[in-house]
Amino acid sequence: MSDLKTKIIAAVKGDLAAIEAALEDNLNPYFDLVSQVAGHILFAGGKRLRPLLMIQCARLCGHAGNHAARFATIFEYLHAATLLHDDLVDGADMRRGRPVANQVWDNPTAVLTGDFLLARGLSIAADTGLSEVIRVIAGITENMSQGEIRQMERKGDSSLTEAEYLEVIRCKTAVLFEGACRTGALIADAGAERVDALTAYGYHLGIAFQMADDLLDYTQDLAALGKRAGADLREGKLTLPLIHALSRASETDRARMVALLEKPDFCEREFAALVAMLDQYGGIAYTRAQAAEHVAAAKTALGQFAHSRTRETLMDIADYALVRKA
Amino acid sequence: MSDLKTKIIAAVKGDLAAIEAALEDNLNPYFDLVSQVAGHILFAGGKRLRPLLMIQCARLCGHAGNHAARFATIFEYLHAATLLHDDLVDGADMRRGRPVANQVWDNPTAVLTGDFLLARGLSIAADTGLSEVIRVIAGITENMSQGEIRQMERKGDSSLTEAEYLEVIRCKTAVLFEGACRTGALIADAGAERVDALTAYGYHLGIAFQMADDLLDYTQDLAALGKRAGADLREGKLTLPLIHALSRASETDRARMVALLEKPDFCEREFAALVAMLDQYGGIAYTRAQAAEHVAAAKTALGQFAHSRTRETLMDIADYALVRKA
Repeated sequence: MSDLKTKIIAAVKGDLAAIEAALEDNLNPYFDLVSQVAGHILFAGGKRLRPLLMIQCARLCGHAGNHAARFATIFEYLHAATLLHDDLVDGADMRRGRPVANQVWDNPTAVLTGDFLLARGLSIAADTGLSEVIRVIAGITENMSQGEIRQMERKGDSSLTEAEYLEVIRCKTAVLFEGACRTGALIADAGAERVDALTAYGYHLGIAFQMADDLLDYTQDLAALGKRAGADLREGKLTLPLIHALSRASETDRARMVALLEKPDFCEREFAALVAMLDQYGGIAYTRAQAAEHVAAAKTALGQFAHSRTRETLMDIADYALVRKA
Repeated sequence: MSDLKTKIIAAVKGDLAAIEAALEDNLNPYFDLVSQVAGHILFAGGKRLRPLLMIQCARLCGHAGNHAARFATIFEYLHAATLLHDDLVDGADMRRGRPVANQVWDNPTAVLTGDFLLARGLSIAADTGLSEVIRVIAGITENMSQGEIRQMERKGDSSLTEAEYLEVIRCKTAVLFEGACRTGALIADAGAERVDALTAYGYHLGIAFQMADDLLDYTQDLAALGKRAGADLREGKLTLPLIHALSRASETDRARMVALLEKPDFCEREFAALVAMLDQYGGIAYTRAQAAEHVAAAKTALGQFAHSRTRETLMDIADYALVRKA
């Protein structure tokens, strides 16, 4: 484990325990199958990053209430719900090193459990009694489904632009990070400036995380990732490393890359050749640089808060977006 | 068309037009695929019963605001979202006389469009600014997914009791009717007694509608129903006519019915024999009587409201639950 990760985990240990307890608590009254399927995705070693962000942001804004961990579970439920539906959409085999729920059970079970988790999240949001929070949560769900639909519509389409890619990852990833941070500020009753600053922090962090994730799909091996390297490409998903490389490549190399995009059963040798081309045309470096810019923007957004342990943890989480291995 | 249906439609003509306009309006800003898939289920001749109920209940409580039709779309979106997911869960072929969305497109598209419609409904709910309405909507979603999961878990299980059946149809159908009526009263700022009365009306109406629906599956032909007769049985769903008949049948007949439940590819002759047994053991009559009791309870709940055209329409809708043919 990297030093940074160790440091972050030490700082949020108590919050993590509270989140785990709240997650189990909120699912407990539900019957067997729901708990099993929901548990399969919820208790498979997730980082709890989204609920942690909500709690840190609430604390940074001076929140002193008792329900932060409970409200924070909203973001893990929403996350788990979309994972359940996305695995079905993507036809993925593995998630977090385990077979996906729609294979352990079946598609209907995965769909309905996703619906249930989404609804659970919304019910908890309703319990905050804050209409702005509810609007945020509803907006997250709307954006995420739209992002996934757009991504699905453009599968295998090599003409996807960087701007279109950014819009997809904003919808499918950044709005949830953004919403978690914004909600933290809102439940702490922070002023508009602080709410906006933490919203910006969440947005940039989310974009950076997704870009780093998209990089890992090309640079990481199966064991660390908990799924197959090259999975995005296999599913026809164009991400920034490839989009950038395609825009710079010679006609011949561009044709080679497009051919691979259209052939999901590529072999390891072909994949390695593609990664070499992504490197050669600057796709890897460009993506890393873009992610680093978003990390910097996230940290800048924290500038208006006085130094504190909580602010330091949020800074560390931003840095971690770039160094994480899985 | 029955006289009652003609009368109801004449009474709600203006509301229906407003609902259609609001449905199109709320979907308009969204991109092609979403509009197409959502439109496939939304504009396939649905009765708009749930949004109509919300509007009538709001009017009965003296609502004078302008947004009733917009808020009413929530209930059609939620309904359409669950139909999209349920068709996938049930493996159905036809819905409202058309092939189901997950066959016209595919499972992922149906799942994500369902998610989007659900989220749209929640966003509109957030716009009411009424936390009680939001709680109702979140609760509906939670109950409906649970009801579907329970129903799926018990597929083909001939030991399902009448009480368990009631709980399933409460979750999967009655909560949405109940929620639409309750929301109508809430946006009209009605007092607790009226809110509760219309909640009870919606609950009993929903139960009656589902029981009538379950009856139609045994008594109606394909053309009127827009789907195959015996579909529930084919999907292993036990409904009240069969549950009641099983509890009264001789051992031999019980075994014959269970055998059919376990054999989804039964022929027309076998299905006719089953319907004859349901009749013989009182399953059809009992279900009709139970539905009639719920219709009566729904109408009784309207007792505290003074006579008005709106109250008459709600009474007519209750009666229509029993006489409708599809």
